[in-house]
Amino acid sequence: MKVRVDVMLKNGVLDPQGEAVRHALGSLGFDGVEGVRQGKVIELDVADGTDEATIKDMCEKLLANTVIESYAIHMD
Amino acid sequence: MKVRVDVMLKNGVLDPQGEAVRHALGSLGFDGVEGVRQGKVIELDVADGTDEATIKDMCEKLLANTVIESYAIHMD
Repeated sequence: MKVRVDVMLKNGVLDPQGEAVRHALGSLGFDGVEGVRQGKVIELDVADGTDEATIKDMCEKLLANTVIESYAIHMD
Repeated sequence: MKVRVDVMLKNGVLDPQGEAVRHALGSLGFDGVEGVRQGKVIELDVADGTDEATIKDMCEKLLANTVIESYAIHMD
């Protein structure tokens, strides 16, 4: 079973990677890009029947740093 | 306008980050995780009316290394 977890920096947390991308897009001539945030996407291939609570546990313990990052779980 | 771009390593390309996560999950006692792939998610705040072709251009020129990475554009 495939599960996707998106991990993004919380609003208000400085995102230098995103800022670098925004700047580079401007240098390449792409105007009108007002903001860029970069995060992680983690695709897990887990055993069938794994419940969302287990995935949440993985996020809290390993996948996300919940002090500065938020996560979203997508069970397909 | 918000646009999301997912950038993942293509199948067959070694993903050491994903492999490290898989191993760490096993060490934490999460069994049954057969595979993990880690990629990037880039959230762009672009001018209203920006078309998908422009976003595709950004991906080809900067956001993804199309030799080893594939990308998916989600216009919300």
